[in-house]
Parts: sequence; C-alpha cells; structure tokens
Amino acid sequence: MSLIDKLKWRYATKKFDHTKKLSAEQLDSLLTAVQLAPSSYGLQSYKVLVVENPEIREKLREAAYGQPQLTEASHVIIFASETTIDEALVAKYVDNIVETRGIDREHIAGFEQTMVGTVDRLSEDQKITWSHKQAYIALGVLLTAAADLGIDACPMEGFQNGKFDEILGLKEKGLTASVIAPIGFRSADDDYSKLAKVRKPKAELFIHI
Amino acid sequence: MSLIDKLKWRYATKKFDHTKKLSAEQLDSLLTAVQLAPSSYGLQSYKVLVVENPEIREKLREAAYGQPQLTEASHVIIFASETTIDEALVAKYVDNIVETRGIDREHIAGFEQTMVGTVDRLSEDQKITWSHKQAYIALGVLLTAAADLGIDACPMEGFQNGKFDEILGLKEKGLTASVIAPIGFRSADDDYSKLAKVRKPKAELFIHI
Repeated sequence: MSLIDKLKWRYATKKFDHTKKLSAEQLDSLLTAVQLAPSSYGLQSYKVLVVENPEIREKLREAAYGQPQLTEASHVIIFASETTIDEALVAKYVDNIVETRGIDREHIAGFEQTMVGTVDRLSEDQKITWSHKQAYIALGVLLTAAADLGIDACPMEGFQNGKFDEILGLKEKGLTASVIAPIGFRSADDDYSKLAKVRKPKAELFIHI
Repeated sequence: MSLIDKLKWRYATKKFDHTKKLSAEQLDSLLTAVQLAPSSYGLQSYKVLVVENPEIREKLREAAYGQPQLTEASHVIIFASETTIDEALVAKYVDNIVETRGIDREHIAGFEQTMVGTVDRLSEDQKITWSHKQAYIALGVLLTAAADLGIDACPMEGFQNGKFDEILGLKEKGLTASVIAPIGFRSADDDYSKLAKVRKPKAELFIHI
C-alpha cells in the first residue's frame, strides 16, 4: 500500500479499541519518526509527553470535554512547547550539534548568532506561537508515520490547555501544551471510519503559477 | 527502505540540482499527500501555491534574502492561510461534506454550529494563527511524503511574508503566506547532505507518564 493509500486509510479516530495496545516496537518506531521531525533551525523547542497512566488520563479526559479517546486509546501523545525560548536554549542545541558532529564550537558561531538574533527579535508571545507551529510540523509527521505503520490517531485541539498544564505539571517543567493526539487502534464499530473523506478538490486547493 | 530510514535520508536541502525536475507523477503524488493532510475540523483554511514561473521565483528569491533554493529547486511550494475565516468559509466546507457524503445538510447542523462557535470565539489574530498552524501540519505531511517519494525539500520560514503576499497577489486572493518549501532534488555537492542529523536524544525529547 502506498503512503497515499495509507493517508486515505487514516482518519481522526473517534472510537478506539481500548483492548488493543501498541507494541513496544510500534511505539518506538512512531516516536523515532517524531524525533526526526524537522523544526525551525532544528531547534525542537518542544517536548513530547507519552501518557499511559490511567488516573492521569481520566483527569485529562475531564479537561478535554470528556472525549473518550483520552482514556480509550493506547497512549496519549502531548506536544508541549518550551515556555522559555532564549539564548540558553539555543546554546544547548549548539552543544548537541558540536557533540553529534564532532566539530569545534567556533565553526558554527555564525549559525548560533543567527538563531539568537531570531529569538531576540521575537516577543514572548511570538516565540511561543513560533514554537507551537514547530510542534504542529511534528504532529504532521506523527500522523503520517502513524498511517504508514497502520496505527490510528486522533489529532485534537479541543482540550483546556491550562488544565492540561496543571495536571501534567508542565509549568514546573517550563512547558505548555500545544496539541495532542491519542494513538492506538480504531474500534470496529467506529462509524466515522466508514465516512468518505472530505477534502478540497485539487482545483480549489492548489494554485499553479 | 522504511519511512524511518527515509526520514533519516531527508534534510533541509540547501543546494538543489537545478537540472532535475519532478515528473508530473511525482508532483501529483506529493500534492495528493498534501491534499490529504489533516486539519482542524477538516477545514483546510489555506491554499497551496505551486510555483514554477522563473520570473516570479527570481522575485521570491529576493524576498527570501537571496536564498538560492527559491530559483534552483524544481518547484516552490507556498502554504498560504485564508485571511477571512468566518461562517461563509465554514458553510463552504459544509457544502463539500454534504456533496461528498451525499447527506442532508440538517444531518450535520450541529457540527456546523460547533465550527462557527469556534471561529466566532477567536479574535482575528487568533484565527490567522490557528490557520497558520494547520498549514504547518500540512507542511509536516509534505516533508514526510517527499521523503517517502525520494524527493528533497527545504522547509523555510526565512522570507518576507509581506513581500511574498505582494509578489503573488495573495491579498487580492484573501490569502497570506504561512510557510514555504522548495522541492526538487539535492545537488551532489550539497555538503549539508553529508552532515550527521542532530536531534534531541529520546531521553530528553520524550517524557513518559
């Protein structure tokens, strides 16, 4: 099956089969794809929570308008942006580049300066928005990789960010929830899986110049 | 090659081989993946420009700090958010659902109301930010699908949005540029392709709960 066919197979799963869990290998493959997701400068200014704990998930469900995916999926993936995006965060990334590539720090001093310049130009609000957007790229990668692996997912913005931050202790971790995606396997009786996919026709979506 | 291996193969291509163009089939596959990208409620509140015109691309390059990818890649993909996100946009989407699924409009009146409620609650700024984020999901899908198809890409935020809007006549179309990605094939002498990929270690990126 081509990736296109897999993208046609996927849908925002409303009803998960709560008896089916991702294997350790499936979860690891999916998280590896998320780890490889591109981001601006490669900064990855977010973390990714992988929530299995049933008590926590009960609370998250309450903070997500009772939506059953929170407790019935195999795992709940939560993208959370860093709240402090500054020179220290950039420096930590540069440390990683230096170590991974075995190069001198001076070699990429210009790149570091560029990143610091970008970060310094943005207001606090703009930084968080920028960072949330990067998390959305990772969400796009997650959803595509899940489809590729035959894993169902439900991207969700319908949750109370503040309550999620509280339940997960994100503030103390310097994080704030961006977007979430319960993952697992569709229930055989999820009627949503039978609906025709609705997308803009190509002639409307694409403008060729 | 697994999708993971393909995601390891990809990188933000700095130097494209300007003699290599995507075939019509490759372009169509990639755009089909973008068409299938998920978005909040499925609204797809953006359009996607596929730019080949060399004169336009020269101008875009100038408005992107002279970065050569703009003129040397096979095509330049530009995600552009709708600037008016209102009941009419929702209604148009509902029309599409009704037609695609052959159902009565009354059948999804509640869903339409939910969407209108969401849209009405947001300020103009929040709407655009929300819409840009959806474009970033589509960017994530594009980059993953490109890797799957062996097509190179370079996601870019480093461009002057206002100038892009002007050059492409986006304002008149009710659009504003979100994020772009030149696509094509890497040049054999792009040294960036040889650099080790830098990503946060899993122990740092993921928090298991």
